[in-house]
Amino acid sequence: MTRSELISFIWKQKSYLCVGLDTDITKIPSHLLNEADPVFEFNKAIIDATKEYCVAYKPNIAFYESMGAAGWESLRKTLEYIPSTHFTIADAKRGDIGNTSAMYARAFFDTYSFDSVTVAPYMGKDSVQPFLDRKDKWTILLALTSNSGAEDFEQLKTTSGKYVFEEVLSKASEWGSSEQLMFVAGATRVEELQHVRSLVPDHFLLIPGVGAQGGNLKDVSKASLTKDVGILVNASRSILYASSGIDFREAAAVEAQSMQLEMKSLLEGI
Amino acid sequence: MTRSELISFIWKQKSYLCVGLDTDITKIPSHLLNEADPVFEFNKAIIDATKEYCVAYKPNIAFYESMGAAGWESLRKTLEYIPSTHFTIADAKRGDIGNTSAMYARAFFDTYSFDSVTVAPYMGKDSVQPFLDRKDKWTILLALTSNSGAEDFEQLKTTSGKYVFEEVLSKASEWGSSEQLMFVAGATRVEELQHVRSLVPDHFLLIPGVGAQGGNLKDVSKASLTKDVGILVNASRSILYASSGIDFREAAAVEAQSMQLEMKSLLEGI
Repeated sequence: MTRSELISFIWKQKSYLCVGLDTDITKIPSHLLNEADPVFEFNKAIIDATKEYCVAYKPNIAFYESMGAAGWESLRKTLEYIPSTHFTIADAKRGDIGNTSAMYARAFFDTYSFDSVTVAPYMGKDSVQPFLDRKDKWTILLALTSNSGAEDFEQLKTTSGKYVFEEVLSKASEWGSSEQLMFVAGATRVEELQHVRSLVPDHFLLIPGVGAQGGNLKDVSKASLTKDVGILVNASRSILYASSGIDFREAAAVEAQSMQLEMKSLLEGI
Repeated sequence: MTRSELISFIWKQKSYLCVGLDTDITKIPSHLLNEADPVFEFNKAIIDATKEYCVAYKPNIAFYESMGAAGWESLRKTLEYIPSTHFTIADAKRGDIGNTSAMYARAFFDTYSFDSVTVAPYMGKDSVQPFLDRKDKWTILLALTSNSGAEDFEQLKTTSGKYVFEEVLSKASEWGSSEQLMFVAGATRVEELQHVRSLVPDHFLLIPGVGAQGGNLKDVSKASLTKDVGILVNASRSILYASSGIDFREAAAVEAQSMQLEMKSLLEGI
């Protein structure tokens, strides 16, 4: 999916919502546990309930990987079930030396046909390049995350006067254009998000941390929306586990629709 | 496996060799491609050929992941086949917010019974903690890697006067003791390795980059061996693909034995 196709779809849906599929078998409604593949059945129901209100789905790979080969099968079926209109993100945070990153790119772009994958920047350019080499796909690089540990390394100040996450933004935006590279920018502090936006005015930002992790959708959006929209806001647990009962589909739809309606009104303001 | 058990096994084997199982289906001898699971058959033969000469095996997860659910099955069978005497490393370079890292820890420590997993530090303490919480297992944290991209972020100098990788070493060595935490330290520049050793005198170092990636075993070992040995040196391609013919087992054994013999003599010098 190209940048302009993604933007068009956002305007069509009047939504920049990404639904995070962090599907935890210990948290899904118990009546699904009798199904042959409870994780896939849950995802299917969540996708049916939310596809009108979102533009992207982001399976969190750890949750599937923790279940071994069966989990990867649930992931494959989930990915096939996501409508081809929707943007797909493998939230994998991979990154390794070149020939190994090339294998990870193959895993997520070919073996599974994701549109994009999240990548960790620590090992530098040659660890990111094999993902960027796929011009038909998207690399979503970690920059500033919303967890407390972000202070440990991301927010160290370097002798150039920049924080480490600023170095990631400035170097990586030379490696890949806004047509194929996005950044992960956490949403706990609005000023930081404004600052990230000023450093990379054209790149899409994937913003987690709204909902269960605590960010406020309106403030986050106002700090980062551009004339090209430029953001995908993720919510996972607040939608997936809106109800733990037999009405989980309806509760997920209500939660996703409520975010979409707020996004619609925010989009009207740009 | 405890630190003292690992050290005892190193002395028994007279080797600190780790064999990296970066098994690439496009590189294995063609006569294996008729087998039901060529990757597993190759690994089995490599393990048989090298187990006398090494103390650890390190499957590179990307290579298995790129093959989808079938790759994870090859990995599971490989892990079962590795003798229980040998230390096992999931070279995965995972790292994410706490609840996601906990899922990755479950994947590698429980679903697959690895002794250890490599972890990326970018997201800081709470992204590493779920791995360290498993006191019966090992976390192997990326510090200084041997690829060219290490200059981009790992080797940025911070205003505290330390490089980012030094911050990783000093902060993380407060999070985990040398009984459960190792560091990845690349082997292209011997002075850097000496420096890493001086910063973390008691922690084991996992040293890739000897062999196909270019480091010299003798220089690398002299820079980093301690009275407790304190290092695992990895070789992957130089052993796995020592021959692409029907004699690949024998060629792998010769290469592994040659490294083991040099290690034996280096161990006698400590």
